[in-house]
Amino acid sequence: MTGASGSTAAVNGDRLWRSLMEMAEIGATPGGGVGRVALTDLDKVGRDRFAAWCRDAGLEVRIDRMGNIIGRRAGVDDTAPPVVTGSHLDSQPLGGKFDGAYGVLAGLEVIRALNDAGVATRAPIEIVNWTDEEGVRFAAGVVASGVFAGRFDLDYGLNLPDREGTTTLGRELARIGYDGDAPCGGYPVEAFFEAHIEQGPVLEQAGAVIGAVLGAQGQRCYAVTVTGEEGHAGTLPMDQRRDAMVGAARMIDRLNQLAFEFDPLPVITTGHLQVRPNSRNTVPGRVVFSIDIRHPDNDVLAEICRRAQDECREAAAAARLEITIAETGGRDSVAFHPDCIEEVRSAAARLGYSCRDVYSGAGHDACNITRMAPTGMIFVPCKDGISHNERETASPSDLAAGCQVLLEAMVARAGLV
Amino acid sequence: MTGASGSTAAVNGDRLWRSLMEMAEIGATPGGGVGRVALTDLDKVGRDRFAAWCRDAGLEVRIDRMGNIIGRRAGVDDTAPPVVTGSHLDSQPLGGKFDGAYGVLAGLEVIRALNDAGVATRAPIEIVNWTDEEGVRFAAGVVASGVFAGRFDLDYGLNLPDREGTTTLGRELARIGYDGDAPCGGYPVEAFFEAHIEQGPVLEQAGAVIGAVLGAQGQRCYAVTVTGEEGHAGTLPMDQRRDAMVGAARMIDRLNQLAFEFDPLPVITTGHLQVRPNSRNTVPGRVVFSIDIRHPDNDVLAEICRRAQDECREAAAAARLEITIAETGGRDSVAFHPDCIEEVRSAAARLGYSCRDVYSGAGHDACNITRMAPTGMIFVPCKDGISHNERETASPSDLAAGCQVLLEAMVARAGLV
Repeated sequence: MTGASGSTAAVNGDRLWRSLMEMAEIGATPGGGVGRVALTDLDKVGRDRFAAWCRDAGLEVRIDRMGNIIGRRAGVDDTAPPVVTGSHLDSQPLGGKFDGAYGVLAGLEVIRALNDAGVATRAPIEIVNWTDEEGVRFAAGVVASGVFAGRFDLDYGLNLPDREGTTTLGRELARIGYDGDAPCGGYPVEAFFEAHIEQGPVLEQAGAVIGAVLGAQGQRCYAVTVTGEEGHAGTLPMDQRRDAMVGAARMIDRLNQLAFEFDPLPVITTGHLQVRPNSRNTVPGRVVFSIDIRHPDNDVLAEICRRAQDECREAAAAARLEITIAETGGRDSVAFHPDCIEEVRSAAARLGYSCRDVYSGAGHDACNITRMAPTGMIFVPCKDGISHNERETASPSDLAAGCQVLLEAMVARAGLV
Repeated sequence: MTGASGSTAAVNGDRLWRSLMEMAEIGATPGGGVGRVALTDLDKVGRDRFAAWCRDAGLEVRIDRMGNIIGRRAGVDDTAPPVVTGSHLDSQPLGGKFDGAYGVLAGLEVIRALNDAGVATRAPIEIVNWTDEEGVRFAAGVVASGVFAGRFDLDYGLNLPDREGTTTLGRELARIGYDGDAPCGGYPVEAFFEAHIEQGPVLEQAGAVIGAVLGAQGQRCYAVTVTGEEGHAGTLPMDQRRDAMVGAARMIDRLNQLAFEFDPLPVITTGHLQVRPNSRNTVPGRVVFSIDIRHPDNDVLAEICRRAQDECREAAAAARLEITIAETGGRDSVAFHPDCIEEVRSAAARLGYSCRDVYSGAGHDACNITRMAPTGMIFVPCKDGISHNERETASPSDLAAGCQVLLEAMVARAGLV
């Protein structure tokens, strides 16, 4: 049984777009974006609407201990592990309409399309709104999916403090009425798929509609402190200087060049830099700057990080500067499941959408789910690669295409009857 | 007639040191420095003390229209143009005990030593405390010597506003009782010498006691704005970036290397740099930084500035960045008079002090006086080259040596009888 374009059931792109725009009204910002931060009153309104839409679509809705909202469509074999999809309805304070919301509402559209077409699946299908993906308000993000996948204890998740230290995630869940009693995870999952906007420019620039996501890059963050000696810009001779600014500049240049020695290219970024005393006529005595390094292969990432530190230390020694390099954060890379990647590629091919393998530069709930189930992600282009920004946008046809691929991939895993 | 060490008259290093320490009590800061900003009540106390010391030494004291205090020791031919020395008693808000005060009180010690030795000179000798050298409080520094030398109109000098725009230099002169009626300049000067601490490390590191100052460097200042495009540090591929930070880093490195292509070495400094948005995980879209370039030869300085701008523009073009370069300030270089330089060198040689030719990295009142009279400067080492700092210090023996050289040079120009 196939619908239009050779598909099992045709998603309704207009309905998907309308649902996205309706959800975007909740927390709409003057700049055209969305501010619907996790576990605020606005998040509750968004959650309520999603739960209502799930029930309208005939789903059984449950709330788990971490406040994840799960809508379930029964399978013909309802004891089989479910095929799950989802993303997050919470946003950055000045975020966009699509980051997260697309993956949740694409899941809902899959259900609606299956309902419209009267298609039953062997395994059950579940759609999830993960609590607090963004990690804006509380001390860390992607924690609820982490508890679901067994990466974190439930206690850790519920006791996660907010950044002001005035409340916890668990208390805020109770406050908005989303402290559910369903178990968080702990059951087998057949496969997990997450649809998401790319949040980068690769698909758009390649003219591709679908990104088959191979994995998420690992990341390491460093704070580099370069210390020389302050001096008068007019009187301290060049050959006697220990200029922290010149030293830092050479390091930043070398780090940039280092990136191009690896394939696939890592990303290496110095986004933050501070000069002391930062006075026009004083040779800088100290510069502190950040390094952010990401690569999809953990071993290669480790090698790049080693080389990056060596380059900085060599540049410091050559300029008679002191240097300290502190690791300030990071996460390992994640590889999605080959079968799930292939489901995405082959669905795109069957549907005639141009598809490209990509890596995710950012972390997603799907990265946590790799610990418990075969997992894949589907990216669609976003305009100019802009995300975490009120200007974030994506085309209705690309969003519909990604949703159709999601449907195909899920049905392939759930099995038609 | 010669005193100790084959000199005309021996300066008293202890007396010079005591005068410096006594002057340093006026505006003494908790950190061991001096805060005696021009035309404050503390400046008046310092001026009063200096004028009293001049009168005690038998000098005729006059105050000119710019508040400059001039003490005059008559010459045997009292109609001859005077040989003049001086510097400034005003300081930075958190300045040192020696910057300026040394040159004024070394002049006073020259007078005292000549008096002690009973030496008369053919030409008169004058010592000057120039008003407001530092330019901390009012819109510009070295203005009073500039009026004296005909570089500025008297009206310009008196109407110079303070940085808050609440008063003028002329009004503040009147407030502290130093709105004199003697003409400011307008008479021939046989020669002008200024003794000063080096404010840099060259003499100390060379083990030299006396610096024969060849001139003061010219200076050009620029603000460079490098504009690329912001992007996500995790998702924007390296080969698609227009990273303003990497571009600025390359420029700063090249500017530093450029300096070493010239002889004598210029100084090229980036002391100030700001990154936008300065967030760890955002590729910087804009960087603004300063360039300060100084060299003793104006033609070479112009060439270096041309090359510096070319280097920046080339680096910007190679990285697909936009660039604007705005000139934000500067002054031409000054060459001191060959005869005056030679007087300093030969006095140092006769006295057995190691002497080295140096350039001044900073501006001084002496630079203005080059417009009207043969001028020279005598530098003595300051510890670690530190100045404009409460920690500024110099050794009593070096200060005495500089003072003795000053005496010899002045007497050589004034003529013994």
